[in-house]
Formats: sequence, structure tokens, C-alpha cells
Amino acid sequence: MVKIFEAEEVAKHNTAESCWVVLYGDVYDVTEFLPSHPGGSKIILKLAGKDATEEYDPVHPPGTLEENLKPEAKLGKINPELLAEAEADAKTPAATEAAKDKDAPVRLEALLNLDDIEAVATKRISKKAHAYYFSAGDDMWSKNYNNLVYKKILLRPRVFLDISKSDLATTLLGHKVGLPLYVSPAAMARLAHPDGERGIARAAAKFGIMQNISNNASMTPEQIVEGADPSQMFGWQLYVQQDRKKSEAMLKRINAMKQHFKYICLTLDAALPGKRELDERRQFDDFEPVDSASNEKGAAEKRPGGGGVGQQLFWGTAGDLTWKTTLPWLAQHTDLPIVLKGLQTHEDAYLAAKYAPQVKAVILSNHGGRALDTAPPAVHTLLEIRKYCPEVFSKIEVWVDGGIKRGTDVVKALCLGAKAVGIGRAALFGLGAGGQAGVERTFEILRGEIDTCVRLLGAQSIADLGPRFINTRMVEQEIFDGEPGLDNGGLWSRAKL
Amino acid sequence: MVKIFEAEEVAKHNTAESCWVVLYGDVYDVTEFLPSHPGGSKIILKLAGKDATEEYDPVHPPGTLEENLKPEAKLGKINPELLAEAEADAKTPAATEAAKDKDAPVRLEALLNLDDIEAVATKRISKKAHAYYFSAGDDMWSKNYNNLVYKKILLRPRVFLDISKSDLATTLLGHKVGLPLYVSPAAMARLAHPDGERGIARAAAKFGIMQNISNNASMTPEQIVEGADPSQMFGWQLYVQQDRKKSEAMLKRINAMKQHFKYICLTLDAALPGKRELDERRQFDDFEPVDSASNEKGAAEKRPGGGGVGQQLFWGTAGDLTWKTTLPWLAQHTDLPIVLKGLQTHEDAYLAAKYAPQVKAVILSNHGGRALDTAPPAVHTLLEIRKYCPEVFSKIEVWVDGGIKRGTDVVKALCLGAKAVGIGRAALFGLGAGGQAGVERTFEILRGEIDTCVRLLGAQSIADLGPRFINTRMVEQEIFDGEPGLDNGGLWSRAKL
Amino acid sequence: MVKIFEAEEVAKHNTAESCWVVLYGDVYDVTEFLPSHPGGSKIILKLAGKDATEEYDPVHPPGTLEENLKPEAKLGKINPELLAEAEADAKTPAATEAAKDKDAPVRLEALLNLDDIEAVATKRISKKAHAYYFSAGDDMWSKNYNNLVYKKILLRPRVFLDISKSDLATTLLGHKVGLPLYVSPAAMARLAHPDGERGIARAAAKFGIMQNISNNASMTPEQIVEGADPSQMFGWQLYVQQDRKKSEAMLKRINAMKQHFKYICLTLDAALPGKRELDERRQFDDFEPVDSASNEKGAAEKRPGGGGVGQQLFWGTAGDLTWKTTLPWLAQHTDLPIVLKGLQTHEDAYLAAKYAPQVKAVILSNHGGRALDTAPPAVHTLLEIRKYCPEVFSKIEVWVDGGIKRGTDVVKALCLGAKAVGIGRAALFGLGAGGQAGVERTFEILRGEIDTCVRLLGAQSIADLGPRFINTRMVEQEIFDGEPGLDNGGLWSRAKL
Amino acid sequence: MVKIFEAEEVAKHNTAESCWVVLYGDVYDVTEFLPSHPGGSKIILKLAGKDATEEYDPVHPPGTLEENLKPEAKLGKINPELLAEAEADAKTPAATEAAKDKDAPVRLEALLNLDDIEAVATKRISKKAHAYYFSAGDDMWSKNYNNLVYKKILLRPRVFLDISKSDLATTLLGHKVGLPLYVSPAAMARLAHPDGERGIARAAAKFGIMQNISNNASMTPEQIVEGADPSQMFGWQLYVQQDRKKSEAMLKRINAMKQHFKYICLTLDAALPGKRELDERRQFDDFEPVDSASNEKGAAEKRPGGGGVGQQLFWGTAGDLTWKTTLPWLAQHTDLPIVLKGLQTHEDAYLAAKYAPQVKAVILSNHGGRALDTAPPAVHTLLEIRKYCPEVFSKIEVWVDGGIKRGTDVVKALCLGAKAVGIGRAALFGLGAGGQAGVERTFEILRGEIDTCVRLLGAQSIADLGPRFINTRMVEQEIFDGEPGLDNGGLWSRAKL
Repeated sequence: MVKIFEAEEVAKHNTAESCWVVLYGDVYDVTEFLPSHPGGSKIILKLAGKDATEEYDPVHPPGTLEENLKPEAKLGKINPELLAEAEADAKTPAATEAAKDKDAPVRLEALLNLDDIEAVATKRISKKAHAYYFSAGDDMWSKNYNNLVYKKILLRPRVFLDISKSDLATTLLGHKVGLPLYVSPAAMARLAHPDGERGIARAAAKFGIMQNISNNASMTPEQIVEGADPSQMFGWQLYVQQDRKKSEAMLKRINAMKQHFKYICLTLDAALPGKRELDERRQFDDFEPVDSASNEKGAAEKRPGGGGVGQQLFWGTAGDLTWKTTLPWLAQHTDLPIVLKGLQTHEDAYLAAKYAPQVKAVILSNHGGRALDTAPPAVHTLLEIRKYCPEVFSKIEVWVDGGIKRGTDVVKALCLGAKAVGIGRAALFGLGAGGQAGVERTFEILRGEIDTCVRLLGAQSIADLGPRFINTRMVEQEIFDGEPGLDNGGLWSRAKL
Repeated sequence: MVKIFEAEEVAKHNTAESCWVVLYGDVYDVTEFLPSHPGGSKIILKLAGKDATEEYDPVHPPGTLEENLKPEAKLGKINPELLAEAEADAKTPAATEAAKDKDAPVRLEALLNLDDIEAVATKRISKKAHAYYFSAGDDMWSKNYNNLVYKKILLRPRVFLDISKSDLATTLLGHKVGLPLYVSPAAMARLAHPDGERGIARAAAKFGIMQNISNNASMTPEQIVEGADPSQMFGWQLYVQQDRKKSEAMLKRINAMKQHFKYICLTLDAALPGKRELDERRQFDDFEPVDSASNEKGAAEKRPGGGGVGQQLFWGTAGDLTWKTTLPWLAQHTDLPIVLKGLQTHEDAYLAAKYAPQVKAVILSNHGGRALDTAPPAVHTLLEIRKYCPEVFSKIEVWVDGGIKRGTDVVKALCLGAKAVGIGRAALFGLGAGGQAGVERTFEILRGEIDTCVRLLGAQSIADLGPRFINTRMVEQEIFDGEPGLDNGGLWSRAKL
Repeated sequence: MVKIFEAEEVAKHNTAESCWVVLYGDVYDVTEFLPSHPGGSKIILKLAGKDATEEYDPVHPPGTLEENLKPEAKLGKINPELLAEAEADAKTPAATEAAKDKDAPVRLEALLNLDDIEAVATKRISKKAHAYYFSAGDDMWSKNYNNLVYKKILLRPRVFLDISKSDLATTLLGHKVGLPLYVSPAAMARLAHPDGERGIARAAAKFGIMQNISNNASMTPEQIVEGADPSQMFGWQLYVQQDRKKSEAMLKRINAMKQHFKYICLTLDAALPGKRELDERRQFDDFEPVDSASNEKGAAEKRPGGGGVGQQLFWGTAGDLTWKTTLPWLAQHTDLPIVLKGLQTHEDAYLAAKYAPQVKAVILSNHGGRALDTAPPAVHTLLEIRKYCPEVFSKIEVWVDGGIKRGTDVVKALCLGAKAVGIGRAALFGLGAGGQAGVERTFEILRGEIDTCVRLLGAQSIADLGPRFINTRMVEQEIFDGEPGLDNGGLWSRAKL
Repeated sequence: MVKIFEAEEVAKHNTAESCWVVLYGDVYDVTEFLPSHPGGSKIILKLAGKDATEEYDPVHPPGTLEENLKPEAKLGKINPELLAEAEADAKTPAATEAAKDKDAPVRLEALLNLDDIEAVATKRISKKAHAYYFSAGDDMWSKNYNNLVYKKILLRPRVFLDISKSDLATTLLGHKVGLPLYVSPAAMARLAHPDGERGIARAAAKFGIMQNISNNASMTPEQIVEGADPSQMFGWQLYVQQDRKKSEAMLKRINAMKQHFKYICLTLDAALPGKRELDERRQFDDFEPVDSASNEKGAAEKRPGGGGVGQQLFWGTAGDLTWKTTLPWLAQHTDLPIVLKGLQTHEDAYLAAKYAPQVKAVILSNHGGRALDTAPPAVHTLLEIRKYCPEVFSKIEVWVDGGIKRGTDVVKALCLGAKAVGIGRAALFGLGAGGQAGVERTFEILRGEIDTCVRLLGAQSIADLGPRFINTRMVEQEIFDGEPGLDNGGLWSRAKL
């Protein structure tokens, strides 16, 4: 028989010595779990003795509790009256008003571009979600440059060509897709909207767009692909855990869904998290100052930025991945193709191509500017590859992400040799603006802009695109040109690799 | 006998099943015409059952109704009292006040430059007109860069030369003109002022300025050239229609006015419209949201941006024009010289020159930044031609447009080899600021600035101008320099063409 | 016997048919003079029948009336009561308050740089004076770039050198001066302060600074040099008049003061005035609109910008000066050395050097950005000369002006080969801020900044300065590099000159 | 027996003829000392007859009075009641409130970056202190560019490398330090916080950070190193005095503390102070205008900027240091290694390397932009050395300072060959934000950012860093490339040195 607890009793267990929380109506004793919480114990202690469901839910996929707590940690159920009261409390007139405003219907057709969508989403999602999505490393130079660099590339439209028809379909890793566009593995979609990653998946299905599911998705992979047609293309992002067994278990789970997941995406550009200050600042908005005694040599020092969502998600990620050890380990646990994400130099692209055919694609990415600030945009790396090792393009597929705001940005990347272009924040903001329908509007806008661009360039299909359609002169003057002061005047030596 | 309808009766026919509108006092049944309206049926349905004259008039030249509706669609006349009442209604004190303010006399002599004129026009024309004229593709980078690029070119004035006299006359296609300036084929002049395209023509006559009439003029070509001296130079812009018969009929009409129209301008840079968001947004300002059921897979998707003026004008334009098929077809239907508008690469300029003498000139243009955003400014294309195929200048005339704000801008383009320089928005804003007199003031300002610039450079005539008078170093570092990553290090191969 | 007029009678003569004005208590009939007024008749007609002294005085040096009017035009004197009344009228409380504020003592020592001084002067001088001084051509790109270009040049300070002493003296045309600084020929100093050009002269005397008197000074040359020590160096700027006799008379007058005037400065960069819109706009602030009938084909068209101070001053200036004709003519009328002002290309500097020894110096100048907008800054021309014809520096002296705000700007120009650096607006703003004392403060600031810069560079004297102390890399990438598209890839051919 | 003075009596001695001040309760007659006060007599005269302790204390280390005044200048003690009253006066409610606000506890852990810390410090320190710390030469271009130049360098992160561990320790002059970071010799720390230089020292001890003590520290060297472990590394900055005996005495004092002071830092980039206007302006905020009679040819002219803290500190500094004379003199008075600070050209770095082993390191520095505005950032000099004389790196250590805001800035300098990177203002602002704890937070932030950067680049230690991790292309296009116009096209000749 399930034991029923009164709120008063739960409230007493609000210390590190005895820490209870209520989740979905159940009462849990998480005292023992505290030290191993990826997000740190502090964030749980703030909610100790209380109902933590609202904080917990959007950032933990189903099964998380079961995986991490022993069965006996579940003590019983909270008296339902507690929940009713809490709900009533929340319904102050002001709160109701705010909720109404946030939930007012959005006229999606009046949102004409991705900035419009981001603006609406910013109003509708929580501050926490916005801080997590919007934030980037340090001063956000890379995030901003990711977009600006596309504006520095000029188009070269050819005229007097038959453009009455256009075909935007292409193939990725041999699979047909409707657009050379994919959804990057951005975490925590349910922070934006209850439709979550599954909402994105269903929108993507309508446009034939590939979706790369985040290792930190807020829904399980099973939930996300539920009901999807096998022709719809998914990939699974893997952050290898220090505890390799956990990763192996996950690979097994993905292997079992091969009809949906066509590759494993190994993320390399974020072995530790960047310093996303906007995200990290959120913790100081919500909570009281901790006393300075406990602060002395305390949490802040051991875990810089602790408290930001990004920081929590990275807890436990392995920092010891290498070409020589990790790829063979992966081969033991999956025969899905490997896509390496986060390459930022031609040297690494060159190395990756050597690992074909296990490695079938690389994603040039600076993690949306969220890892190392002043890291180069993918366009730089594309131009480096063209300059130093163009043979890479013929050995593996090159995908890129970061900074995409317009169809012209997508087309420029394709002209430089990219096979697909990813959007991360844009999909989440679409979700924030209108759930699945908001994501559809995002795709619709991009498809329209890509189509207009392809045709006004004088091309008829994705295959027609190439470097003759763009002028990259301004950007080429900024890319890496060899090490300063070297006698070889910038010549790049492969011998070093 | 003409039938007289009461307003109440007309008002009943306000659905897609039976749609009547009143135009110039006549009642029309446009139900059948709805699906073929270039501007989409939605915009008509908003006005169904009402007097649509005010919306209709400034964007449709005379004859449009006759051309598109069957005679029996004209049902009769509206009871004139209806109109009187409507007019009375419109004369509320506030409306009268607003009208007075808009119509207050402008002291044109106090407007010293083109920005002054645009500022005044912006206050006086309707929001819809402003959105249509001002708008450009996507984020308006090309529109802004079109002007900025001129500022990056420095002048090199020579001194101690006799500049007591100057001569700004030149010839275009062998015809003498007073200034190396022309009016670009900008549509819908009556949106700015009732003087319309004819007002521009009469102002142009006073300065010997050539006028390129838009295919989408709000007056008929006959109206525009009415009373013009044969020495005044006009060109006719052709957007080839999917239904070639319509275009052939128009060519026939223009051929009949050869004493005025000295060439056909074939526009190639806008086979489909760019995404002019300012223009497109207007539809959401004016009307109620459509219900989402009809929106589902509805208008917005099939016709992105539907509702903007630009979008409406492009409906029916052919996208299958090619060098091999279209020029011969033109030769069958006119022996007027052909001017190709919208070239943006030296490759296309090189190709065009091969089609001399049928093709007598090209216009380097990115459509005022209104087609593809981040398309290159005409100055880039001029510099490309100088670099890769300067022989083009001796085979055909090269005209340019886009971004002209100052006489120095005009002179710089001429120094780079342009034979004439077009202004589009500037003429329309002149019209908006003061009708024909406002256009005259625009021309007067530009002529004064061109004259001052020519003389302070130490030149005496347009023929004296050349590249030694300018320093294009900053811009040359930005122009196309071959495809990135090519082994030939930027060498351009004609073999590809 | 002198006739006395009543105000009422004078007031009747307020038309172009009979136009009287009062100046310094005398009544003049200027009807006949109207068409030949350099500033146009309109400006006089506005004051017709009234006392015009306040408008007239600061812009006309003594003797102007005598030179331009026949003796019989002086009709008599105004009844002195009129003047008393007018003065009383002017002393409304508000006017008195405003005057007090404007005349409040300024703490000059608290003004630390030239921007501080300009800010104070802007508050104290009339709007008209400010518009005239501050204005520049078109959009003021050249004016702004004149200064910015100095910021793009970096200094290269050398260390561990004895800099306990420094010597800022130098020679110009063989004459010793205290600083490598001079006052440019800026017109109308009395608009800023009654001390006028003589106040500048007396301030300059304290610092050993050369002064180039403007052809349009608001005091006579005799007044300006009155009491000056012969060791003080002056130059006289000549705008050659269409009526050469006037210029010859002026040269004769200057020749007679050879002990003060050491050269004639022939200005070449402003054969006609630039379009200084700020200045031109002033006319529309002050006066009522003219009726449009008289405007038709009227003043505005014939004299673009008529009404601005700059425009008035240029009336009558010759536009037919040439190397071949003007220099011999000058030789006939003066044996003073000639300094050519307004060169903006290395080609012209090269040509000028051929005319040594009659031509002893050139001034690289774009007229403070007041002539042709987007004309190059003097720094560009200095770099062009260094690149294409460095021998010029050994044949003639090269002076520069434009954009000087800091001692470091001065030193950079000297490092590039300039022998002297001129300031124009800065001296006038000094005058506006505090009369002669304000000019002294301006010089004091600049001397201090130059001294600090010279010593922190590791130099001890002006002669020590040279290009090794500066890094001009950024600017060198912007200077003229030959004509675009020429086969010789930018090689400059002297044969063309 | 000590004489007791009443306030009234002291107040009478408030002129240059008899000038008394109260300091720490003692009454001094400073009449004789007035002319030799480094800060000028004016600043003392303002406080004549008053208690000057508050103004005096934070800018004079203990012992200053004893060193500069004769024993008989100390007249006696002030009646303690005077002080009590003064203190009471100061405790107005407003003052108390202000003090409370300034002293409110700061939550240091919520300050996430150096800008956050500067913002808090700016609120807490006096305006005078802020003006002194924040100010830089002229228009602060160099100060701003010092930081911006780091943003123009892009990182090149390598992936798939084991970064689970990192080691940030390095050696400087053979001594082990915990971070490649040091505190630059910034003066007057007690202006920010009573913890002063000793507070910085104690914070530095916790991180193994080297500290370069300023010649103008507000505490004595003995106070600063008091209690420090010999393993903690200090350097002493020397501004050589015109009166060499004073400097020799100081060297003797430092020699005696060799267990702490591991080198002498000879500052060369500020033989005279730059024009720090923000600092200089402070004098005009505090005091009444001096009468203009005394101003005539007075203080302001003889000592430009007199009154600013910077200006005062430089009084008496020798300007005649040279390679040939000063290094031998130093060798006579100390056998500590010499570090030369303030080199800004590769030429001087090359020369310095010739003086090894007496000279063991150079500091590339433009004095935080405080000396000569538009002087080059240290990054430029690093790149110059790499280009023209890379052997310097192997002969002496190269340290840099200026513009550091982020860990990525530090890492970039290290990649270019710097052995250590200095922060000046950042340490002072840390002190201002929270005394010693604020400095610790500053170091903690930087250490965290450096660690994240090193690891995300794929490096494991400081020794791993090198130019292949950065893209300096944009900056290399701006560095010195030889003298403009030289025939050798930029080749650098060592023969000149």
C-alpha cells in the first residue's frame, strides 16, 4: 500500500542530511543521490522539502528517475490536496494574466523570417529557457560572427537561364531527404514547448528534413521517433560518458531503432562546456545568496558556472576521447555510420577523412558559439578545407551548422561544398513560438528562401550549386594562412598531423 | 439601358461564390476572375461587396479591366448617392486634417539632397506606397551596400585646369541626352502621386533625361508619352509573361510608338520576386487574420509573401527565358534594340556582348537590392568587367543602377565605364514629395551635384571622365577573384560559359 | 553738409527698384549694386530699408563698401535715435540673458583638448557662424575621414633614448618658426569673435606659428599684421578673381607688406564651392519663403545653395586657372614665392615640383572636406607621393592640412614627410571659445601634445622624425594603386601628365 | 614635550608664505617643501590650514613624510577634539547612507567576468580613484585597441584529444609559478581599498601568481611582502629618478629583500606621462578656479595636466635613460636580473636581447594605453618579433600586458610566444570590488577561463600552446611592414639599430 505524506512532513526534510522532494505526486528521498546529481546538489537542496515537478519536468526525459534512484527511494505519495492548493496559489490574477498573454494565439503566417520567430518565442518561453537557448560563450563573438560571416559572402546570380522549376531534394549518407537542411542536436526542447523533440520530429516529417536528436533531449528517443515513417531520417548524438557503460547501454538502445536512427553523431567540440554567462547568471536571479562560509573554496570554484543548464548537462561527460581509442570502441558497440561533430580546422577534417568509411561525415561547428568564444565559424573551416585538403569533400560528407538565419546563408554553405546545413536555436525558437506548428513555419520560411535563392542564382537543383555562385573574397582574407612567423610563409605541413 | 444597383444589394455579393466590386461607379461581377487575379483572390475578397476604387486605381493602368474581364462582367452602375455618402464619411475632421497636412505645400528649394526629398515623400505618401518603394530583399544588405560602395570609392581631383565651363550631355544608343542619367523602370508611380509616370516624363523632358518605363507602370505607355517631343528618349521594360501572346501584344503596341520608345528593356534579374518583407508585412497591418482552416496549406504557402505589391506584380512572369530562345523570339516581334537588365556578373556581361548588335546595352543591376539579398552592387560588376573582359565596354553600352544618392555616385560609375546611371526610388520619392515639380527638384539637385563634381575633378565633359579620377582600391579588394580553392588561383575561364 | 534720414523714409526703399540700407549709421542706396553683390541680391533685399550693420559687419573687412560702391551711393546719415531705439529693443530680458550666458567667462585651462574647445565655441558663436565653420561637402565623409585616417596610423615609440630635452622649432621656406604648425586660410574670423584674424595673429606670435591669411578674411591684411614683428611669418591666400584687375590690385597691396607676407598661397581646390548643406540650410531658417513665381527658374537654380556664407564668398572666383597661364601671370605681379594649395594627387604634386623655384611649397588639402566629398585626405596624397614620386620632397616643401585634432596627428604627418601642418577650424573655434586667449589655449594644447609625442617616440627634434616612427599599413592598403583594369596592374605612368 | 595646536591657529597658515597641514594628527609646516612637491604646490595649498590626511593617505606609502621633510617641520599635534568634530561632521545622514551603499557586501561569486568586477568596483571606489585607474592617453584608442586586437585573433580548437587533465603552471626567470599570469606594476592600490598592494600579494599567493610591485605603490615594499613565502615571486618596478641617489637607495632596499624580489623591472615606456584627460579633469571638479593672474604663464603651462594623479607620480622621473649608460649603472647597484618594460617595436626587442644575460626579460607594453595614444598593442609587437627577429624568444623571456579581459586573451598571447601575461587595472578593480577577496575572485575567473580555453583547444599544458592554435590573419595585415615608400619594399634593416 502506498503511503500518503502531508506537506508539513515533507517540508521537514530540507537539508543535505535528509532531503525529500515531490515529483509528479510521488515523494522521493534523494539524500543519497545528492552528490551524484549531474546538476550539482545545490539545485536540489533549493527545492528540498517541496514539490520540484515544475523545475524537474522539462529537463529530464522519462525514465531518468528510474535510472538514477533505487526503488526504495520512492517513499510514497503526497496528499493530493497539497497540489491543489499550490495550483490555486499560482492562479493569482497577475499570474493568470501573464499566462494568458504568453499563451495568446500567434499568427504564424505573419512571422516572415527567423528573427520574427525568435522575437515571439522570446516572449513566450521562460527566462530560464531563453537564457539557455540564447546564451553563448563569453562575449558571444563567435555566435555573432557565425551569422555575420554569411553576410560577407556575396552571391553571384546568373541570368537568362530557365528557372521555372527547382528541386531542393538531396541525399545524406545515401538517404533521400527533402531539403539540404537538418535539425542540430539541441538539448531540452520541452523547455520551449510541451511538444518537445517529438514536435520537431513531426514538423520535420512534413518537409523531409533530417533530425539529429540531442543526447540531452527532454524526451526519450523512443518517444521522439514514435510513429515516424522509416523513410524519415534521424541521427543520435552521443556525449560519451566517463562511465562508458552508460554510453554502451544507450548505443544498444539506439541500435535497436536502426530503422529510424541512421547514424551516431559523436560530439567533439564540447568536451567541457563553454562559459555561457547568460545561462549561468540565471542561478543568481532565482535564489538567495549562499552563505559565504560554504562558498569558501566551495561549489563555485569546483564547478565554474554551476547552476546554468548547460553546465548541468555536461556533468559526467568524458574528456579523454581520442582518434585511436574511441573510434574502435564505437565500432564494438554499433555498426551505424559515425558522424563527427565539432571540427573547426582543416587538419581535423583531413584526419577524419582518413577514418572513412567508419566515419561517413563530419559536422563543421563551433557549437553555435557556445563552446570557445572566438572559435572560427564553419565557413572558415569550409574555406580552409577547400584551400588545404579539398579531397576531403570526395571522401566524406561535410555538414555545417551555426549562424543560419536566411535561405541565402544555407545556399552559400552549399556552394562552398557543404552537403547539409543544420539549424539548432531556430528549431527551438520555432517550437517556442508555436509548438510543432511553429517549427513547421520555421521550415516553411527557410524552404521558401532557399528556393528563391537557388532560382534567382540561375540554378535548378542543389546539385547545380557551386563556388562560382558566390564571392568569398572578403572572408578568404580572414582565414588561417599558416602560422605567423614560420619560414614557410604559411605553407601547411601534413607531416605534423 | 444601364442598370442601377443599390449599395445594399452589392454588399450581399461578398464571397468567393459571388463576388461583386464597385470600380469608378461601375458594378462588376469578378467571381470568375478571382482565381486568375495576379494579386491573388484574397485581396479582392477583402473588398468584395464594396467600392474598391481607392485600392484599385493607383496600381492598375487604364485598360486593365477591359483586358481582363468579359464584357458581361460589367453589371451596371452603382447608385451615385452611395459614392456621395462615402465621400462625406471620409471627410471627418481628423481625416481632413490629415489630408491637409499631407497636402501642405512643400518648399522644394529647401530640400537640398535626395535624403531630404525621401524624408518629405515618406511623410506624404501612403504607408503602402512607402512599403513598396522602400522595401528590399530580406535584410536589405544589398540595398544598403549599393550606396555604401560608392562611399568606399575615393575621388582624385586634379587641379589647375580650366573648369570655367562644363558639358554634361552625352549619347545613349546613339541618341543625344542632356545628362548621363535615366529613370529606372520603377513600377506604380501613381501610388506616390496622381502625376504618375507622366509627371516623371514631363520633368525628364526639361533635363533631357531618358526614362525607362516600367512594365508595371500605373499609366499606359500611350498616356505617358502623350505630347512628348520625339527627341525625348523612352525605353519600354518588358517582363515576359508566361502567356507569350500577352507580351507579343504589348510589343506590338510599343513598336507602334517607335518615335518615343527607342529600345526594349528585358528584365532578367527578377524572374521571381525577392522577399521584400516590409512590403509583405503591409497585408497584416490592414486586414483581419484569416481563419486558420483556410490558411492550412493555403495561400501563404503557395504564394510566399502574397499580398505585398511586389508579389502581386510578378504574378504570371515567365521563368523560362534563355539566351538561345528568348532573343530570337524578341527579334520576331520587334526590331527595337534590346537592353538586358539585371546582369550581376562579368560572365553574363561577356555573354551579352556576344549578342550585339541585337543587344545594344546591358544594365548592371541587382534590382535595387529588391531581388536577392547580398547580391553584388553594380560597382562590383563594373570592376569585374574591367578586370576580366574590358572589351565588353567597346561592344555594348553598360548602364548601371542602384544606390545613387549623390552626384559623386553618378560620376564614379561613369569613371568606371558606365555610359548612364539610373535612379529608381529617387524619382518616385521626388514624385511623392511634390508631383512633377518634385521630380524636377530631384533632377535639379543631381544635375547640380554632377556638375560640381565633374568640374572639381578638373574635367570639362562626361567624355573626360575615366578611372584615373577615382581610387577604387578598397572595393577592388572585395570583388570576385575566382572560385575559392581552385588551382588556378582565381583565374577565370571563359571556356565554362 | 550730411543729410539726416528718418527711419520711416529709409524703410520705404525696400525693393529691388529702390534699395537702401543703413550701415554703421550711414544710409546707402545699393540699388545699382544689387546684381553684382557676391552674395546675391536676395540677401540684401531681406535687409532692404533696415539697418544691416549686424549682418554686414562680421563678414566684410573695412574698405569693402568703398571698393564696391560709388561715392554718390552714400546718401547721408540715419537719425541716431533710430539706432538707440533698436539697441533698446534688442535688450529684452531674454536677449540679455542669452548674451550673458554666451559671454560668461570660460575657464580655458579646464579645456584639455581641441574637442573641448570646439564644444565651448559651439555654444558661444552664432548658429550662422557655426554652420559656416562646421559644415563640409555633401555628407561630410571627407571631413570625418580626414581625422579618422590619422587614427589608423599607429605610432612606433622607441625606448631607452635620452629625451630629457626636445626642440620643436623648424623652418618654413627658409624662415624660422617655433612649431611645425600653421593657421590655414580660414575665412571670416570675426564671425567667431571681434578679435578676428588679428587675434589669431597675436596668439600665433606667442608661439612662433605661421599664419596664412584668408583671401576672405574679415579684416584687412593691414589690420591683421599691424604691429607684428617682422620675424612673424604670414602668407596671403589668393582666390584669383574673374576680374583679374582686382587680384592684381590685391597682389600689389600684399607686395607692399613683404616684411610680413613671405609668400602667396594660390588656392586650387575650390575653383567652385562644394555643397556645404549645413551652411546652405541656414538661409531657410532665417527668412520667409520667397514666392514661387520669383523662384521659378530663379535664384536657387542659377546659384545652387545661394545664401550660404561659403557660396557668397566664392562669387566671382575664376575657374580658368592653369599651370601654363596662371603662374606666368603671377610672376608678372609678385616676386613672392608661390605656395599651391589644394593638391590631392601625386600627379599634381609631381607637376608642381617642376615649377620650382617659383613654386616653393604645395599644400595637400581637400579644403577641410568642404569641396568635393569623398576627396582623399592629405595623408593619402603624402603616401602616394612617397610611393610614386618621392623626389618631390626634396624639390619643394610639402605642407598638409585637414582633420588635425591631436598632437599625434601632427607628428604622424611630419613623419610622412610633411614640413608643416595646418589647422583651420581649430583656430576659429579657439577664437570662438575665448578670442585671442582661446586661440592661445588651442596652440598651447597642441604644442604640449606634440612635445609629449615627439619625446615618447624617442625623438629630440622635428628633424628626427621619419617614417620608421609610424605604422601606416592600414592606410597603405587604401591608397590609389593605379587605374582598375589597366594592363600595367597599377603602374603609374608619368607620360600621361 | 609635544606642542598641541588648536584648529583655529592651524587654519591661519593657509598661504604659500606659511603653509601648515595636519596629517595623522600631527601638524606640519610644509612651506619650504612646497616647491619640491612632486604633485605641485597647488594641490597642497588647497589643503593648507586643514587636515589633509584623507587626501594624503591613500597615495603616499609610509615613510614618505620622513623622507621628504626635515624633522623640525613637524611642529606638534593637533588638539584631538578637532578630529572628533570633523569625523562627526562627516557623519551626516547622507554621507552615512552613501558609505553604507559603497560598503554593502558584494556577492563575488555572482561576478562572472572582469567586466562585472570593473562595474562593481566603479561604483565602490572614489571618483578620483576611478579616474586614475580608468584613464588612458588622449582618446583612449590604444586602450581600447589593446583589447579589441585579441578579438581579431581567432582560435583553432583541435578535437578528439585527451583533455581530461590540464596543467597551467609554468616558470618565469626560472622560478615556478602557478599560472602564466602576473600583476602589472599599477600604482596606488590603496586608492581602491585599504587592503592595498598587500591584499593583492596575499590573493596572488593563493594562485601562485607573480606580482610586479609599482614604484609608486601606496605601501612600502616591506609591508607588501611581509609574511610572504619565499616561493612567492615578486618584482620591483623602478622609475629612475633624476636624483639618482634616491633610486640607488631604493635599489639597496630591494636588494636586501632578495628572497622576495626576483628582479628589477625598469620601466621605459613612460619617461614622461601620457595625457590622461579623465585623470586630469578631476582637478577641475574639486576645486575653485584659480585666479587668472596667477594662471598667466602659470602652473598649467609649465606642467600640462598638473593635478591629475598620473602627472603627480611622474614628477622627478629621469628622461635621460639609455642603453649605454643606464644598464651599467644598474649593474653597479644590483645583481638582480633586469626586466625592461614598455617595448613597443621589434627593433627594441632585438636590442634588448643583445643585453642578455643582464636583461632576462622584456615586457611588451604600451602602458595600458596610458602613455602615447595610438601606440601599438603588445600583440603587434609579438607579431613583429615573430616576423623580423624570432630569435629573441630564445634569448630572453617576452612578457606582455594590456587589454586582457578574458582567459582566451591570455592564451592567444601565449600562443604567440609570450611567456607571461600581465593584468593591471583588473587587479585594482578586483581590489575595489572586494579587497583581497575581490582580487582572488578576479584570479579565479581568469584561471577558470584559461583552463577552459587550453583544454577546448586540445592542449594539456602551457608548454603545448603555440601559433598553430590561433589564426592571426586579420591582425597580421595591420602590423608594421617596413617604412612606406622605401625601395626595399618593407625589408627591415638591422644596420640601422
